[in-house]
Amino acid sequence: MTAVQSHIIKIHCEDEKGLIHRITQALFALNLNIINNGEHVDRQTNHFFMRTEVEGAIESEVIHKALQAVLPNTIDLKVTTKQTKRLVVLVTKETHCIGDLLIRTTSEDMHGQIVAVIGNYPDLETLVTRFDIPYHSISHEGKSREQHEQEMIDRINAYAPDYIVLAKYMRILTPGFVEAFPNKIINIHHSFLPAFIGAKPYQQAYDRGVKIVGATAHFVNDQLDEGPIIAQGVTPVTHADSASDMALAGRDVEKVTLAKAVNCVLEDRVFVHENKTILFD
Amino acid sequence: MTAVQSHIIKIHCEDEKGLIHRITQALFALNLNIINNGEHVDRQTNHFFMRTEVEGAIESEVIHKALQAVLPNTIDLKVTTKQTKRLVVLVTKETHCIGDLLIRTTSEDMHGQIVAVIGNYPDLETLVTRFDIPYHSISHEGKSREQHEQEMIDRINAYAPDYIVLAKYMRILTPGFVEAFPNKIINIHHSFLPAFIGAKPYQQAYDRGVKIVGATAHFVNDQLDEGPIIAQGVTPVTHADSASDMALAGRDVEKVTLAKAVNCVLEDRVFVHENKTILFD
Amino acid sequence: MTAVQSHIIKIHCEDEKGLIHRITQALFALNLNIINNGEHVDRQTNHFFMRTEVEGAIESEVIHKALQAVLPNTIDLKVTTKQTKRLVVLVTKETHCIGDLLIRTTSEDMHGQIVAVIGNYPDLETLVTRFDIPYHSISHEGKSREQHEQEMIDRINAYAPDYIVLAKYMRILTPGFVEAFPNKIINIHHSFLPAFIGAKPYQQAYDRGVKIVGATAHFVNDQLDEGPIIAQGVTPVTHADSASDMALAGRDVEKVTLAKAVNCVLEDRVFVHENKTILFD
Amino acid sequence: MTAVQSHIIKIHCEDEKGLIHRITQALFALNLNIINNGEHVDRQTNHFFMRTEVEGAIESEVIHKALQAVLPNTIDLKVTTKQTKRLVVLVTKETHCIGDLLIRTTSEDMHGQIVAVIGNYPDLETLVTRFDIPYHSISHEGKSREQHEQEMIDRINAYAPDYIVLAKYMRILTPGFVEAFPNKIINIHHSFLPAFIGAKPYQQAYDRGVKIVGATAHFVNDQLDEGPIIAQGVTPVTHADSASDMALAGRDVEKVTLAKAVNCVLEDRVFVHENKTILFD
Repeated sequence: MTAVQSHIIKIHCEDEKGLIHRITQALFALNLNIINNGEHVDRQTNHFFMRTEVEGAIESEVIHKALQAVLPNTIDLKVTTKQTKRLVVLVTKETHCIGDLLIRTTSEDMHGQIVAVIGNYPDLETLVTRFDIPYHSISHEGKSREQHEQEMIDRINAYAPDYIVLAKYMRILTPGFVEAFPNKIINIHHSFLPAFIGAKPYQQAYDRGVKIVGATAHFVNDQLDEGPIIAQGVTPVTHADSASDMALAGRDVEKVTLAKAVNCVLEDRVFVHENKTILFD
Repeated sequence: MTAVQSHIIKIHCEDEKGLIHRITQALFALNLNIINNGEHVDRQTNHFFMRTEVEGAIESEVIHKALQAVLPNTIDLKVTTKQTKRLVVLVTKETHCIGDLLIRTTSEDMHGQIVAVIGNYPDLETLVTRFDIPYHSISHEGKSREQHEQEMIDRINAYAPDYIVLAKYMRILTPGFVEAFPNKIINIHHSFLPAFIGAKPYQQAYDRGVKIVGATAHFVNDQLDEGPIIAQGVTPVTHADSASDMALAGRDVEKVTLAKAVNCVLEDRVFVHENKTILFD
Repeated sequence: MTAVQSHIIKIHCEDEKGLIHRITQALFALNLNIINNGEHVDRQTNHFFMRTEVEGAIESEVIHKALQAVLPNTIDLKVTTKQTKRLVVLVTKETHCIGDLLIRTTSEDMHGQIVAVIGNYPDLETLVTRFDIPYHSISHEGKSREQHEQEMIDRINAYAPDYIVLAKYMRILTPGFVEAFPNKIINIHHSFLPAFIGAKPYQQAYDRGVKIVGATAHFVNDQLDEGPIIAQGVTPVTHADSASDMALAGRDVEKVTLAKAVNCVLEDRVFVHENKTILFD
Repeated sequence: MTAVQSHIIKIHCEDEKGLIHRITQALFALNLNIINNGEHVDRQTNHFFMRTEVEGAIESEVIHKALQAVLPNTIDLKVTTKQTKRLVVLVTKETHCIGDLLIRTTSEDMHGQIVAVIGNYPDLETLVTRFDIPYHSISHEGKSREQHEQEMIDRINAYAPDYIVLAKYMRILTPGFVEAFPNKIINIHHSFLPAFIGAKPYQQAYDRGVKIVGATAHFVNDQLDEGPIIAQGVTPVTHADSASDMALAGRDVEKVTLAKAVNCVLEDRVFVHENKTILFD
């Protein structure tokens, strides 16, 4: 006999009358208890999104089959047992984002496991290995971009991660890399998007004289900085702040915003639709 | 034949398995289209809350009856046609909150109608009547608290409002007044609750040297400043701000926070439970 | 004998050793009392900025002369008696920003006087004249851009305003108009700059799926939306917010941000330097 | 000959006419260059505060002597060479605040050095020693409060720290401990003060149904949670957040707010006056 376990159901389909009724009927027939439930309808495209946490003495596959039977026009349907997700984190030299993620792994503040960190420099090896997490330094020097990325991809795949987090990984990824992990790469962008695209964003913010700086966590797609936004954060600055003061303030926003986005994804709370995200509480 | 119209359904009942299924089945049987749907379960008390917007060629009463049949343990069930709500606003002398509400009535930014404003001073009559809204000055001078409140109650009841908004009404209400309008009175409190209870809150904030000031919109119950919180807002201040600078900054937070709370209530988005609110998007 | 009065001194000059010493020596020699003082040095350009409020039985001209004598490399020096500034407000059809400014004039919440409102449509005449402020409807229809702006300029000049506030004035101004009022025009931009330049910013924000929307108050120069930023504000939004929900949330940010910027300018707290502002508390 | 070095001057005295003039004259006579300057006058008490960063080929003692000569009514005068400050951090079991501080020491994001961490449990020893920082576990079990604190005081004094940071140290300090380190102990309080004093603040926040949670960093004095506030932070929450969700959101606010306060103090930007702080940019 199957023990009681938690499952997360994610449904994305075309909207139609009677949808929630049919879905909840199927769940009721399986004697499942709904713990948490969220729905959203995108009126512009008429798409329906639902995320449900259920408990019951049943396998995920059975639930999936039962739902598929009542959802003929499903675009995406996932039923997964609630379990710890695996992350590979990519870094360059900055410590604030990877450091924040590492500290969270020492408490209950992150619902995933960092299985490896890969850097294009060796600088962060000492920090990462202090947390008993493997660090791989894969230098890009003297290699073509494709060659370097292929080494990264091979190393990443060896860990079979659920998601890849770019924690201030400062190299631009090719479409080939992005396609290898669709909607699986989370990046933290050093500004409140859409804004200050390109290098030295805090110098740009300083030069523009902004009164607020921000950061944006997003999925990476083939358009640089144009992927679906998961979370954004801001903090006020003044004329008395130099470009480096703004960068310091920005780093606190970056790390908290990235961690928030990562946690949302780790808890299966995020849908991607039309280059936007739908986030359930 | 009934024309297609929008209804808002608010359900509060004890949680049990199969609830959403039974509810959506009933709605489906009436050929209703779900436009918007939100649910929440309070795990501590095992209470279930649901707010649904539906469209269909049917009267509210029919929906109510159908739902009641499938919900034996209902604590509260309301089905209402979407329509403009009526507000009576109580004021004393300050203009920022009532002024903000009045300006909103000139655009689509408030989903209700101010049917009258009542003040315990005549000061705001000029401002209010400029917007072609009746103003009643009911002085508290030379009257007992009960006598004054009875006059207010009579005047308010003559307008049959859905809600009463205290837009910086600076007199403490007796339990008798509050009981006359249960969960119908919305107040804006001049601080981030729980904090600085009593008079001159911004002087208190200044004396305490806070770095952020805030405001809290809440339903009024018999416990002063202890009613269910609907919305809160904050804004940063510094040591360079005097008590009156803090009050000025606070007034902007007050008016925006009050308006946000009023709009939530006007759109039937708020449930009250255990001295807390549940707010659906 | 001159009565005691308040003066505001604004100094902008090249930085050099002994500057504050020479300035405060001159003020001390005139027996002036410093009420408030702020300084800033822009390290990149080596420019010095100082704003000082003083009290004394002396005319502004005397202070100006005394300071000029000790400041050979002054870029800008202003000594003014503290007095109410005059504003002309330009509008189109939206009520939230002009309404907020009008309400502030009924209390102590704005340190200036709206002497006239000019609209390119007659829609807001009723609202504005309710506050006993003259409204001029100057239609742009059937006129060249230059012809229309010349009518506006003539009307504005007749009121001799200190500043011109664009409270959702929805027409793009020509360089000619802007040059007629250098660093005197304050605009509220419907987004967190730099971002979403162009029409329908909230639809753009919705399409991009942002999680925060904002507004930017800035001086207008000849580069559209590129003038010195005075104040910025933000508010969170979610996937459940439609483009019009975002616009509603944005309007609250717009009006509060614009009013904050206008108050800073009215109190002579703002310097413009290198397309940025320096704001003293 | 003395090399050019940076000094930080902090002056607190009664306000009087000609003060800034006399101070800047003395600095000018010593051929010092003012890099950064801030002043504040508390109008209620008529106290004057000034923080100045200067550069010159001179010793701190000489500056101190020159200023003392022109400031007869000085309440506090400090001239210090800019140098890295020493911190001892006290902890119990939670990792988020100490972890954040540790990560900052690996970059330029903290302007001080953690010379030791002391815990009343051994739990955090592994984490702290990974950063090559000594950890002392001083259990309170089986000891009187005074006995335990005396052990702590002895251990702290052995490190001669400039400041002591309570990074979620969960024991209440006696007046004796506090008096041993006046205005040198920085605490992070788990709520937006004044609010939710006592145990389980996030459960209290949940029970009260707040829509925003916050944190307060403050100096510790003999009144529990009543010391001068240095920094405050907030983050929004909803009815969908459980008490533990609120605590998770709160922990991010706590760590960022504590780090901000610690950095202000480490850079000598903070004055304490009348149980409030004055913070210079």
